[in-house]
Amino acid sequence: MSLALDPAAQDLLFREARTANTFTDEPVTEEQVQAIYDLVKYGPTAFNQSPLRIVLVRSAEARERLIPHMAEGNQAKTAAAPLVAILAADNEFHQELPQLFPHFPQAKDVFFAERPVREQAAGLNAALQAAYFIVGVRAAGLAAGPMTGFDFAGVQKEFLDGDHTPLMIVNIGKPGDDAWFPRSPRLAYDEVITTV
Amino acid sequence: MSLALDPAAQDLLFREARTANTFTDEPVTEEQVQAIYDLVKYGPTAFNQSPLRIVLVRSAEARERLIPHMAEGNQAKTAAAPLVAILAADNEFHQELPQLFPHFPQAKDVFFAERPVREQAAGLNAALQAAYFIVGVRAAGLAAGPMTGFDFAGVQKEFLDGDHTPLMIVNIGKPGDDAWFPRSPRLAYDEVITTV
Repeated sequence: MSLALDPAAQDLLFREARTANTFTDEPVTEEQVQAIYDLVKYGPTAFNQSPLRIVLVRSAEARERLIPHMAEGNQAKTAAAPLVAILAADNEFHQELPQLFPHFPQAKDVFFAERPVREQAAGLNAALQAAYFIVGVRAAGLAAGPMTGFDFAGVQKEFLDGDHTPLMIVNIGKPGDDAWFPRSPRLAYDEVITTV
Repeated sequence: MSLALDPAAQDLLFREARTANTFTDEPVTEEQVQAIYDLVKYGPTAFNQSPLRIVLVRSAEARERLIPHMAEGNQAKTAAAPLVAILAADNEFHQELPQLFPHFPQAKDVFFAERPVREQAAGLNAALQAAYFIVGVRAAGLAAGPMTGFDFAGVQKEFLDGDHTPLMIVNIGKPGDDAWFPRSPRLAYDEVITTV
């Protein structure tokens, strides 16, 4: 093994962590979400643009509004999860850029004046942050259940606005009974990595 | 602190890890890249589609072909980094899906028969895997320098093919002198996370 990260942490974040489909009733606290955010906010993005925005669906009323937008196979688990988070990309992230990238505050206007450029950058960098968030959920000893099986336009209209594009929805909690399928195979090193 | 991950691992992966702009001469070995891949391959993707592909630019000849495609501000560091990795999304990932998602081998044809659908899925899920890879580089005790400042069409033509879309290029190595700027500020919890 050539890794500096200790094996228990490797297991917690990658090897034993799994996408959960069932959860216990144990709540996910605000303190836990704050601790997750305070860790993963440091994950790198281009120009530190940090375009990820998160809506925590906590109230019963909001949960009821969300469920009909989920794909049928995702409805029961999304209704039952202790916490559901809608992850979205802020396509107007450049407004915060002078604060976030003080080395070169002009980046806002020099690189990100055009909306299509911002949408592409926000999509990529918010996806990186979504992955950091999933790792962070696992770092908190919780299981994540990320899903893209939902009506994106419906969720955007119901919970976001025209400047925020949904990326994924993540169920969060302690894994319950029969929480996952057997681990699916991964591609071999040589199927993924080539050297030139 | 509400995290299960021990503080040393938090520092290694997020708090003290930084995007490096300079590197020492110490090589990044094949064994290290294998260990990184063997860890981060377990990061979740939709339908386990695992669309990330990586080209390791190791030879002097390949490095020389890459540099002219980098933005001017990224050329010197990309020329000097011990290892450079081109991260790309495989838009034909569905070919491997029957192997990767044995619970529902029909997913290949039911969900991913159309190229635009695959391109969108590959872009999102390869970006998640790019973030896992950056975390994995850090887990190996190395610094990553991810960059999107390069000629995407040029790099695709030079190193990939029409089915593989470049996502980012990552310099990898031990951080050198003055490897980074001071840490830029992050958004506050309330600027990112809302509760409904």
